[in-house]
Amino acid sequence: MRDYNHYLGLVNEAIENIYYPSQPAQLYEPIAYTMALGGKRIRPVLTLMSCEALGGDPMQAIDAAVAIELFHNFTLLHDDVMDRAPIRRGKPTVHTRWNDNVAILSGDTMLTMATQTITRVDDAVLRPMLKLFNKTAIEIYEGQQFDMDFEQRHDVTADEYIKMIRLKTSVLLGCACKAGAIVAQAREEDADAIYDMAVNLGLAFQLQDDYLDVWGDPSTFGKEIGGDIANNKKTFLLINAMNLACGDDAAELRRWLACSDPALKQDKIMAVRALYEKLGLKELSRKTIEDYSLKALKLLGEVKMSVESHHSFENLINKMVNRKK
Amino acid sequence: MRDYNHYLGLVNEAIENIYYPSQPAQLYEPIAYTMALGGKRIRPVLTLMSCEALGGDPMQAIDAAVAIELFHNFTLLHDDVMDRAPIRRGKPTVHTRWNDNVAILSGDTMLTMATQTITRVDDAVLRPMLKLFNKTAIEIYEGQQFDMDFEQRHDVTADEYIKMIRLKTSVLLGCACKAGAIVAQAREEDADAIYDMAVNLGLAFQLQDDYLDVWGDPSTFGKEIGGDIANNKKTFLLINAMNLACGDDAAELRRWLACSDPALKQDKIMAVRALYEKLGLKELSRKTIEDYSLKALKLLGEVKMSVESHHSFENLINKMVNRKK
Repeated sequence: MRDYNHYLGLVNEAIENIYYPSQPAQLYEPIAYTMALGGKRIRPVLTLMSCEALGGDPMQAIDAAVAIELFHNFTLLHDDVMDRAPIRRGKPTVHTRWNDNVAILSGDTMLTMATQTITRVDDAVLRPMLKLFNKTAIEIYEGQQFDMDFEQRHDVTADEYIKMIRLKTSVLLGCACKAGAIVAQAREEDADAIYDMAVNLGLAFQLQDDYLDVWGDPSTFGKEIGGDIANNKKTFLLINAMNLACGDDAAELRRWLACSDPALKQDKIMAVRALYEKLGLKELSRKTIEDYSLKALKLLGEVKMSVESHHSFENLINKMVNRKK
Repeated sequence: MRDYNHYLGLVNEAIENIYYPSQPAQLYEPIAYTMALGGKRIRPVLTLMSCEALGGDPMQAIDAAVAIELFHNFTLLHDDVMDRAPIRRGKPTVHTRWNDNVAILSGDTMLTMATQTITRVDDAVLRPMLKLFNKTAIEIYEGQQFDMDFEQRHDVTADEYIKMIRLKTSVLLGCACKAGAIVAQAREEDADAIYDMAVNLGLAFQLQDDYLDVWGDPSTFGKEIGGDIANNKKTFLLINAMNLACGDDAAELRRWLACSDPALKQDKIMAVRALYEKLGLKELSRKTIEDYSLKALKLLGEVKMSVESHHSFENLINKMVNRKK
């Protein structure tokens, strides 16, 4: 079992070798641009790690790994159109640099490229791989739709939020790990346990995202603190606050939610953060993250793998959940 | 070999039986709405016809047929967003009735549903089917991009236009026929010939579309005559006119292209049509349609099938190419 950077190197090399036809340029340039933006590449790395941990040759899982990264980047591309996001990984998003139509059509193309790439796996594992991949894709669309629905609702529960982020972000981590297990032709119990492990890791990861937006250290976080608060984003924290706040606290929260004055942005961030703290959400948030990562570690313990592999995954879980950015 | 309506009945029944989860409603309702809009269902009918003509059981091809219709409707859904089209088959388009985000995400979901559906074919034909389906999808995106590129260009040649419509519309008819051949486990020569037959049929069909917009009979055409002219749509006719017109004709054409005054719409349609006729484009258009349908008939002759099946395809080609709407 090698370290993260070893797998990352394999993944990056494979991504650099993706072939893009030269014409139509407006179709393929945005795809090459998107794939070159980088990112942590956590999903394809998980696929290779999982394959090797379960006794497979990680290079046999490279197509599945690249397919999942292509798919992930397709979802970001279309999500950025839907969210009108101007920036992704420090660069203009595709719909900003080109236009909406280019973003829609390049995204469609990436989805089919991802499907073509996943199809390159061996005959022996083709059907379970397609089944996992397509099922995961559908779940992710459902998660994105729930996320958009939630923005229009005022009665979202914390359970609904967890269900939404499970669909929108966690199942793809599960898919990444299980894809590696499928290539390794692992026992079904192991494939399922490593899937569940990654789903729990994904939940912890997403809640950590929500946490860092509020209590992250501006010097290490990499983006502005408080963006979710400023934009009234329905995070784990805001949803819990809306459900828990009573009396004056509820009135104050409502007042800040109604305020979009840019001049009051810092005041809003400070006030809402103070409210979160008063409501005990900093502790609830840490505890929930801790619970999901403990669950991930427990599930990891159920998967038969070498001590060394186990250790690598354990490190990764701890790193992802305790990350500062 | 049964008639068109027999296959259409099988297709419509299968489409009615597609399962849509109830939640999230905003994701699945637009898909059910789109699939219920109907249409000629020419592609899935071709799949069943082709399968039966080549010795297969058409019901074994029903998943492939439905997958291709799902895929086709996904492309219409996303194209309508890109083209800002308000109406499709007499009803508001999804992005008009809901919104752009709903249209983007429902479309993505339809694409993955199509891929899931195509995957239901037998193991023996899974790989060639996926290869055909994914390759066709990529070609269609390329065609759509070329179509959008052409709207910004003034030097498009007739050959480029034919290449574009081959990608954007004809290869899916080819795919529909070849999918039936693959399920029937037909000989490769037959599968390829029926593919080429359908591609030529598709070219004739699309050129007939361009023709009917200008010279169709308003009482049978079903939509307003002259829409392409009014919108400066780069059809086979306009592209040829731009390349062939000289002197005063060229100046007149340019003048009308620059005119978007709604009050002059009928004048523009009459004038541009007269110019097309003066340039011999009515005859060129009929001759080109004739050439592609003759080529389709010739290729049909190369496919080994019963006299009865041959006759059914021949009828279909003649009907599609001589249609009035």
